[in-house]
Amino acid sequence: MLHLCLAVIPSRSRFDALQPRLCQLPSDHDGKHSEFPFLKHLLKSHPAVAKKIVRDSIMTTGAAWKSEEAGPNRILRWVMLLPDETLLEYGINMNNLKPQVVAKLRDKAATYEECIQVAKRLTWTAYQMPGSPEPDAFTKDYLEDHFSTMIPGSTSCLICLEPLPFTLFSGAARGKAAIETGHMNPRHHDATNVGFVHRECNIAQGNKTLQEFYDWIAAILERANKI
Amino acid sequence: MLHLCLAVIPSRSRFDALQPRLCQLPSDHDGKHSEFPFLKHLLKSHPAVAKKIVRDSIMTTGAAWKSEEAGPNRILRWVMLLPDETLLEYGINMNNLKPQVVAKLRDKAATYEECIQVAKRLTWTAYQMPGSPEPDAFTKDYLEDHFSTMIPGSTSCLICLEPLPFTLFSGAARGKAAIETGHMNPRHHDATNVGFVHRECNIAQGNKTLQEFYDWIAAILERANKI
Repeated sequence: MLHLCLAVIPSRSRFDALQPRLCQLPSDHDGKHSEFPFLKHLLKSHPAVAKKIVRDSIMTTGAAWKSEEAGPNRILRWVMLLPDETLLEYGINMNNLKPQVVAKLRDKAATYEECIQVAKRLTWTAYQMPGSPEPDAFTKDYLEDHFSTMIPGSTSCLICLEPLPFTLFSGAARGKAAIETGHMNPRHHDATNVGFVHRECNIAQGNKTLQEFYDWIAAILERANKI
Repeated sequence: MLHLCLAVIPSRSRFDALQPRLCQLPSDHDGKHSEFPFLKHLLKSHPAVAKKIVRDSIMTTGAAWKSEEAGPNRILRWVMLLPDETLLEYGINMNNLKPQVVAKLRDKAATYEECIQVAKRLTWTAYQMPGSPEPDAFTKDYLEDHFSTMIPGSTSCLICLEPLPFTLFSGAARGKAAIETGHMNPRHHDATNVGFVHRECNIAQGNKTLQEFYDWIAAILERANKI
């Protein structure tokens, strides 16, 4: 099991005083600290995919949250763990938001450690998609040490269980990415619970757990088959 | 079978020159012409529901189409049958819109007659929802003449086939109505193809036909059950 450096990386965001960002390189590394060394290789060949993995891992989503009333559009997930009073000091007034927006933001909350683990897991998953690039030796070893041996081409959509081709990252339907990050339980953002999914599958699952979704569609089919 | 008045109702919109709005009262009616006489009763007791029926019947939907670039937010469905050149004369430049926005707008197009029939059908359906108000004699006769005898409490969600309580019209989840107008085939807006649906069911169906949706979820379940 790899020992990580975990040195504090100098501040980049106003929230770093609350939760420092940590170096994820092996403890015996040379050179500069790095928070996402497992994405360095992908960032070169497929920058949009690497950036999406970082974004989905550490930021809340915020569809249509563009007005001030609607709340921050995207915010660091661990910031959403802070109490209202602390957020107010950072200029985020949760009392100004509709209760359902607050609930949605709070649902997306996760610790820094959970977010980093999700980023690693998604990267490991991406490299196992049909048609994915091959990881370099460092990345392969690093990710396999964290999880298990990669099986090229083995990644399926977490929801519909169909193979999920890497090329879908670049495909776009109606201006939106065809692949999204999904959650078996939409209210838990951790590495055991995430995976890539088709956009249409993610939309269909909504805020149900995967089991609730399967139960729901089974009940629909049962009623539909009676007719 | 009822004979309708179908007199032209004096202009209210700049598009009326292209497609006049017609009186839907019986041909032997007294008093003023009316386009939605079958909604008069519901408009008194549940104005939001009556207005929703009119809106969903005659207007395109336009989620998140708020920027000029994104196209008209809501527009009369029959206007979307007009060629680009005619629309340009009315200040709508289809060439300025993204192809997928144009496709979406064109998908929602329907004739005036289809829209009016949809409004009648939805009203007939609403009065058969569990917990719906009782129609007055005029409305009941009018709608039953158009379709068939109403069976109180018999309306189910077109998609999941669960009973659809009238009270869901006033319930709101996350600021949005829990009931939407659904289509068995999302690209055909006519009375044989529409019904009320749960918002979550409508979202899950997406742009699939109902049969495609059932086939899709059956395949998902088949794969899920193998694991």
